[in-house]
Amino acid sequence: MTADNQRRSKGRRTREAILSRAVDLASIEGLQRLTIGRLAGEMGMSKSGLFAHFGSKEELLLATVGKARATFEEQVMRPALVAERGLPRLWSLCEAWLDYASGAVFPGGCFFTAASAEFDSRPGQVRDAIADTMRDWLRSLERAVGLASEVGHLPGHIDPSALAFELHALSMGANWAWLLLDDSSAFDRVRARLKDRLETLALPGAPALFLHSAVSDSVDADADDEAGPPDSVAADR
Amino acid sequence: MTADNQRRSKGRRTREAILSRAVDLASIEGLQRLTIGRLAGEMGMSKSGLFAHFGSKEELLLATVGKARATFEEQVMRPALVAERGLPRLWSLCEAWLDYASGAVFPGGCFFTAASAEFDSRPGQVRDAIADTMRDWLRSLERAVGLASEVGHLPGHIDPSALAFELHALSMGANWAWLLLDDSSAFDRVRARLKDRLETLALPGAPALFLHSAVSDSVDADADDEAGPPDSVAADR
Repeated sequence: MTADNQRRSKGRRTREAILSRAVDLASIEGLQRLTIGRLAGEMGMSKSGLFAHFGSKEELLLATVGKARATFEEQVMRPALVAERGLPRLWSLCEAWLDYASGAVFPGGCFFTAASAEFDSRPGQVRDAIADTMRDWLRSLERAVGLASEVGHLPGHIDPSALAFELHALSMGANWAWLLLDDSSAFDRVRARLKDRLETLALPGAPALFLHSAVSDSVDADADDEAGPPDSVAADR
Repeated sequence: MTADNQRRSKGRRTREAILSRAVDLASIEGLQRLTIGRLAGEMGMSKSGLFAHFGSKEELLLATVGKARATFEEQVMRPALVAERGLPRLWSLCEAWLDYASGAVFPGGCFFTAASAEFDSRPGQVRDAIADTMRDWLRSLERAVGLASEVGHLPGHIDPSALAFELHALSMGANWAWLLLDDSSAFDRVRARLKDRLETLALPGAPALFLHSAVSDSVDADADDEAGPPDSVAADR
């Protein structure tokens, strides 16, 4: 490796380390509070050292959203692709999002939900980058719903975009209840509700995991989740 | 009226006018950007004039949340109390929230959803006031669900807190899609989904408005909403 390459490689590593810290901080405190001065202090660097990597606050914010997006794709979107097409893949996306939002990836919950609220009224590249990421995420859920219909796990007349939106809105609700109301059980409750929703829609050809047990045919699926014997699902397999 | 009373009355009116402006601004730009200097400029007042009403930024923020809460109670929570107990009252709460969030009350959508994201990681009185308001709102929905079970519109074994949470999470999703993704149709789509959800749970004794028409018995209620003849519900009445 030439000295030039070594310098560039070290520069990239430093930049990645700064951005990792920036994403964690922003997930807790918000993107707006991320300043070059603040981040320099956190990293034990000089402001001018940090300026060498990001020329402006706008550039720092854009790079931070880009880093969060890459992490989100890697931790939430990509792993689900190994799951079987159909309900298993859709469910894998749902579970990965709930894990991600409950602090497994960023300490402050869902980076993009927080960033959405901060930037939805501030037109510009940062808002666009946040919105693009969320549109991509909704499209991933939609594609998974569409595939589930194609392979016969869900009825063909389901509107993928409506169901994708519903699954995502409920999940964001769990993130909200955890962060504002200190209700960490919200993730488990939403997980059960999402599962129940998919079970209600699942066709007989779906994997056994997604088929309601006989006891669950009454009108209130939520109550069934709590009251129904969990073994009855396993017995159906 | 004595001169003293007149002065106090004028003071109250000025304070209310300042807070109305503060709530509107905060609903768009966020509570954090609300400073005494900013607000003084908006109101054409001096900073010291504004300081006479609110001694500190913390006090200003608390008063702003208090004003938003009073407006929320008046515009969303109270009107529903005149609706018939049961599903009509629950539905009235849901519709009032969607109207409120879609800009009918504050220009920037739901004040409390925005404030939640801003303050969930900042312990203190402002966060507590936001969380209290949201807990009260969820309790109102829960009470309405409980009453709907009591009067025989919903099954008795429904978990009021789970259903209240679900209805609220979906509604917050519409607010999110509107503000971040510029998707103003999200309110109508969520309204249809909430209605469908309540129809799925409604018992035969519920008002006709909440009873699924015969065509809606198939597995995907979302698709039915779009495909089913809207007149069939009216014909059932």
